[in-house]
Amino acid sequence: MNKTVNRQFLLATYPTGEFGKGTFTLHEGSIKKPRRGEFLLRNLFLSLDPAARLWTTPVDTYMDRVHIGDVMRGFTVSRVVESRHPKFKVGDLVQGLNGWQDYAISKGVNYNDKGLVDTWNLSNIVRAGMPITTALSVLGHTGLPAYVGLLNIAQIERGQTVLVSGAAGAVGSIAGQIAKLMGCRTVGIAGGPKKCRTLRESFGYDAVIDYKKENLDRALTRKCPEGIDIYFDNVGGETLDAALAHINIGARIIICGAISQYANFGQAPLAGPSNYLSLLTMRARMEGFILSDYYIKERKKMESDMLRWIKQGKITYHHEIVKGLENAPKIINKLFQGKNKGKLIIQIADDEEIANSL
Amino acid sequence: MNKTVNRQFLLATYPTGEFGKGTFTLHEGSIKKPRRGEFLLRNLFLSLDPAARLWTTPVDTYMDRVHIGDVMRGFTVSRVVESRHPKFKVGDLVQGLNGWQDYAISKGVNYNDKGLVDTWNLSNIVRAGMPITTALSVLGHTGLPAYVGLLNIAQIERGQTVLVSGAAGAVGSIAGQIAKLMGCRTVGIAGGPKKCRTLRESFGYDAVIDYKKENLDRALTRKCPEGIDIYFDNVGGETLDAALAHINIGARIIICGAISQYANFGQAPLAGPSNYLSLLTMRARMEGFILSDYYIKERKKMESDMLRWIKQGKITYHHEIVKGLENAPKIINKLFQGKNKGKLIIQIADDEEIANSL
Repeated sequence: MNKTVNRQFLLATYPTGEFGKGTFTLHEGSIKKPRRGEFLLRNLFLSLDPAARLWTTPVDTYMDRVHIGDVMRGFTVSRVVESRHPKFKVGDLVQGLNGWQDYAISKGVNYNDKGLVDTWNLSNIVRAGMPITTALSVLGHTGLPAYVGLLNIAQIERGQTVLVSGAAGAVGSIAGQIAKLMGCRTVGIAGGPKKCRTLRESFGYDAVIDYKKENLDRALTRKCPEGIDIYFDNVGGETLDAALAHINIGARIIICGAISQYANFGQAPLAGPSNYLSLLTMRARMEGFILSDYYIKERKKMESDMLRWIKQGKITYHHEIVKGLENAPKIINKLFQGKNKGKLIIQIADDEEIANSL
Repeated sequence: MNKTVNRQFLLATYPTGEFGKGTFTLHEGSIKKPRRGEFLLRNLFLSLDPAARLWTTPVDTYMDRVHIGDVMRGFTVSRVVESRHPKFKVGDLVQGLNGWQDYAISKGVNYNDKGLVDTWNLSNIVRAGMPITTALSVLGHTGLPAYVGLLNIAQIERGQTVLVSGAAGAVGSIAGQIAKLMGCRTVGIAGGPKKCRTLRESFGYDAVIDYKKENLDRALTRKCPEGIDIYFDNVGGETLDAALAHINIGARIIICGAISQYANFGQAPLAGPSNYLSLLTMRARMEGFILSDYYIKERKKMESDMLRWIKQGKITYHHEIVKGLENAPKIINKLFQGKNKGKLIIQIADDEEIANSL
């Protein structure tokens, strides 16, 4: 890699369906100098997430859309290489929304106009001896939503039946394990025998449903014989609909994502949950949340609980790390095809540079 | 009327669409004698409600379905005419689910296998000088849900924008007035210029939307320029969907009913709200409830608040009372056609008998 060039993937067109060949263009520019109050980041790792597909629709959601010509948005782990900011020093490792590029200029607040995402110093994670990539997974924006969803939103209680969709995914796998360690019975939905084996063997699910093989409604009757108390939904669509038909009185449905629906978001109406009247008949609640609402007040507690559980062996996590920023546009579609084997992360810097960053 | 005969409407078939000619059969039987622990009721008034259509689908919901051959379910105001029950005395006026019939035998608990509806003594209402028909409307199962939905579920706060659908209806009209007296800005949706005038002139809505004339999405943009904090939904379908596109961060959507969807309930998939992902992006909550969950603990407080507001002139209510049990099967369809001019009530007993009952 030429270290005087900043490779950037810019959004070229809003995709229809999955990301395509023309979605991004590669731009090679110069590396900018930070101004007063700014710092320069070297991006080491880039997280690839389903939300990327939400951000690349011509509609503003909980964040503004990515506009045509902008650097593609993405969470990164980065090292400060130059700083004119009082709080960030050269050598600091940080996590933030620093995009699909080699270098980024940051003000220490990546996206604050809706109060959403801040830049976080990763010293806690480094000190705890955890790989810094966990800042993009179990200790970051995929693990912590599982925590917030179950503890803050659903107010999980021992003995409940907790159903998780996308149960092998970066969020779902953690949700299942948190529910389990809270003393609940966990039922996971995933696609294919391999993932279903992982659910049982790695993530400790009590029962699994292979949505590619089984009729969801009949499988839920069999595998949630006492009904569903909490449904942690990552996929939406017909899975959400099927789950609604099996909820108990007072159930909580946590809307964390809707990966089955993202490809058409903003372009065609989504499949709405036609069984939503179960909310009435079962006096139940369906609620969405955004992790960053809980960062300021609760990140410390969440992080320390999660670190403890990881050290106790109660939570495990899988990463699929792919080397080379140039692979991001193609690799990200694995998420929508259900083909990734763990939290999908692009390694931007080479091994040596990463070793020297720690 | 022959006072030795008990006229009963029995469910003959599950209707498709509205109630039809063959839905009910009239059965003339004898008046039963109460056994130990039971009492005999003379039904004076019968409430006609949209929920009747939910109960007559071949699906159990928050109550079991009405089975073929059973007396059609309905809330009544009734007088105890014979009693072998320690708590209910001859002459007591009670409200309960005593059905489409002249006389009913009650155990004092009408429907308790899911803990739902009890028989209530109406002495409070009589003592307060209110018409006993209000036990079937503003002080009963249509007025109190407006209270529970806004105060207990949505936790309404002064200054919020509250949208109500079915805003001229028995529930919606009370919801709008409670929201108003709580210091909120109220926006009501109803069909036709007459109802819209009633919304403004009788129920004090700050803004109204005629869904038969206006495009809902554009009307909501204009009439909820600061977005929706609370949406009290009585109709479901495309109205719910349109509202979801206009909610604010932290919004509460109260699912009280879905009259636009009842006719097909259990027979075809409902129209699910395709904008439900607003719950995620807006960190919002959609929640259903059943009034009777709140009866035991809170009925006294609810009743006394409502009575005070009525006496202060802050809450008004409209009744459409139709004489003759024989008219119930035809008249109930007015609800689904939006043609009733107030809470629809059948007067079963004649004026003289009612006067003598008080």
